Amino acid sequence: MAKTIPLLLMGCGGVGRQLLQHIVSCRSLHAKQGVHLRVVGAGDSKSLVVTSDLFSGELNDNFLSEVCRVKSDGSSLSTINGSGEWQVFSHLESQKKVLDISALLGKSTGLALVDCSASSETIGVLKQAVAIGCCIVLANKKPLTSSMEDFDKLVAHPRRIRHESTVGAGLPVIVSLNRIISSGDPVYRIIGSLSGTLGYVMSEVEDGKPLSQVVRAAKSLGYTEPDPRDDLSGMDVARKALILSRLLGRRINLDDIKIESLYPEEMGPNVMSVDDFLGSGLLLLDKNIQERVAKASSNNNVLRYVCVVEGSRYEVGIQELPKSSALGRLRGSDNVLEIYTRCYSEQPLVIQGAGAGNDTTAAGVLADILDIQDLFP
Amino acid sequence: MAKTIPLLLMGCGGVGRQLLQHIVSCRSLHAKQGVHLRVVGAGDSKSLVVTSDLFSGELNDNFLSEVCRVKSDGSSLSTINGSGEWQVFSHLESQKKVLDISALLGKSTGLALVDCSASSETIGVLKQAVAIGCCIVLANKKPLTSSMEDFDKLVAHPRRIRHESTVGAGLPVIVSLNRIISSGDPVYRIIGSLSGTLGYVMSEVEDGKPLSQVVRAAKSLGYTEPDPRDDLSGMDVARKALILSRLLGRRINLDDIKIESLYPEEMGPNVMSVDDFLGSGLLLLDKNIQERVAKASSNNNVLRYVCVVEGSRYEVGIQELPKSSALGRLRGSDNVLEIYTRCYSEQPLVIQGAGAGNDTTAAGVLADILDIQDLFP
Repeated sequence: MAKTIPLLLMGCGGVGRQLLQHIVSCRSLHAKQGVHLRVVGAGDSKSLVVTSDLFSGELNDNFLSEVCRVKSDGSSLSTINGSGEWQVFSHLESQKKVLDISALLGKSTGLALVDCSASSETIGVLKQAVAIGCCIVLANKKPLTSSMEDFDKLVAHPRRIRHESTVGAGLPVIVSLNRIISSGDPVYRIIGSLSGTLGYVMSEVEDGKPLSQVVRAAKSLGYTEPDPRDDLSGMDVARKALILSRLLGRRINLDDIKIESLYPEEMGPNVMSVDDFLGSGLLLLDKNIQERVAKASSNNNVLRYVCVVEGSRYEVGIQELPKSSALGRLRGSDNVLEIYTRCYSEQPLVIQGAGAGNDTTAAGVLADILDIQDLFP
Repeated sequence: MAKTIPLLLMGCGGVGRQLLQHIVSCRSLHAKQGVHLRVVGAGDSKSLVVTSDLFSGELNDNFLSEVCRVKSDGSSLSTINGSGEWQVFSHLESQKKVLDISALLGKSTGLALVDCSASSETIGVLKQAVAIGCCIVLANKKPLTSSMEDFDKLVAHPRRIRHESTVGAGLPVIVSLNRIISSGDPVYRIIGSLSGTLGYVMSEVEDGKPLSQVVRAAKSLGYTEPDPRDDLSGMDVARKALILSRLLGRRINLDDIKIESLYPEEMGPNVMSVDDFLGSGLLLLDKNIQERVAKASSNNNVLRYVCVVEGSRYEVGIQELPKSSALGRLRGSDNVLEIYTRCYSEQPLVIQGAGAGNDTTAAGVLADILDIQDLFP
């Protein structure tokens, strides 16, 4: 008999939508593996859709495909009408509803609460769900990069949380680090390029292209956030560095991390519009980067935007690295992580590959869900 | 309250001994994680030592350290005398005893049967233990590279088997591949350098050194088996290729893999002594390798001894690869695996690092044991 994992999805944007598609297309594969993913609900920032029969019903595959269609059209789940099979709740009601479902299923069939949003609003619900006995699976970095108090509550039952896709998308970074930790192999140093956008930018400026031109090209290729400063600030990488540090047992916060922004404060989002930044601001940054690239090159080094966790050093920024290292050889938008431990002391353990994209990120979330199946009755 | 994982270790050679040491030194770490590893027995090829109280007793840490001392002296467990706390069984009795313990604990407290031997003799016991409901954790490649019938029985309950250290030592190869599989991401191609010995040999001959000199140096550095032909035959890599292929669902056997041996049949172990092979045989192989290295180099390529799994192609042998690829850049004894999938289609997922050594291999086994904890009551 197939084991059933009831799950409720928060966040149906790019990653969440892709996850639902993966779930539907993996039905026969998972049946062969003896597992069934029973989607009891799905929510976005405006609405929550829930099956009417929480204990044995589910949002069926036709309905999930409809959810994907609605979301890919840019609409909200609130445009879906209720029926006998499912109910639609407004944003105001949905937090309470998620908690009700968590309480109801947490102790009986179990529930995997899956957070594919990019919001801080889910933290409260996630903490309570964990306390009730639910499992949580996160692609959302915000819950794990809030206060230490929140972090402690979320990881209170370490076997009931998975969050592979918070760092390096679907790359097996968290699972590998957790294996190293549980085998007692001390981690000396982690260094990585964990932003596909900044990886692309740094390897393009290495080829002599001006930063301004590279950033504009990256934006038009869809590699950056709508406001590229969200990438260039280094905040996203800092969140990943914080998650890795906390996994290693460091009790630190985001402001303990030294973050190098690629633009100065006077070009920040509160001072300058996106268009002004792309049009004139960026041009002022070209010379400095060009000089740093040239200086590095004269030492046979390259510049990489990396995160470093080593002892009590937590840094996110540009570093000069040997051309011949795994990081130095990195091209394009791939992520790479080097982990130095007792077992990997001279040469690091290296994990490299696509570290962004909805498909990969959602695949990581799906693998996480399958990985907690032994916790379900 | 700490969760207890009862385990029985088969094989106390280099890896098994190191595993026991890791277990002892990780006691406080695992206590913090809420897990206790209860070692109920340990066996080598001559003896089996078992706690007298199977349901709640264990071989205590002092005794495990004594086992490690005996084994590192090159002695057998048979030199240990029984006591009130433990019993010693001879080789003849031990298979039956392991099965008795599996039957007794499999259904009650659960049991992890850990195989760190390099023997085919454990296959029967492992199959029966799985059928009874035990978990198995393997560093031993033989059980998974025997007949398809054996393989099917061993993986009959996929959640109850772990075998990370059968490929690439502790490198997160199997866990990564299993995540890719469970997320429905189709694997197009796997190519890897999975022998530290052959990796070292190929990168040294690339530098212009004669094969004969490199193999002798590798032997004196302890990189090879006592008879280096055990590495040069490619059989060990072929077993790893078979394990990866079967994980991907291919129902093939060892003789479906095309294996290139680095020495001809007339220099095989049945024809020529180790000394003759090292002294005179190897010299005859220098010229051919030197020519192949030069030819590859003229194409800006290098030679690597790789395993390839792609469609119905299963090959283990020397290939010309671009100097700039992850495999081409490989130096020394590191392993590297490139996995091409839908999510990693243009650039592969790359996993690289030390792929040999007792410490790393045992760390992989230990992480596997911790990973099955949710299956224990």
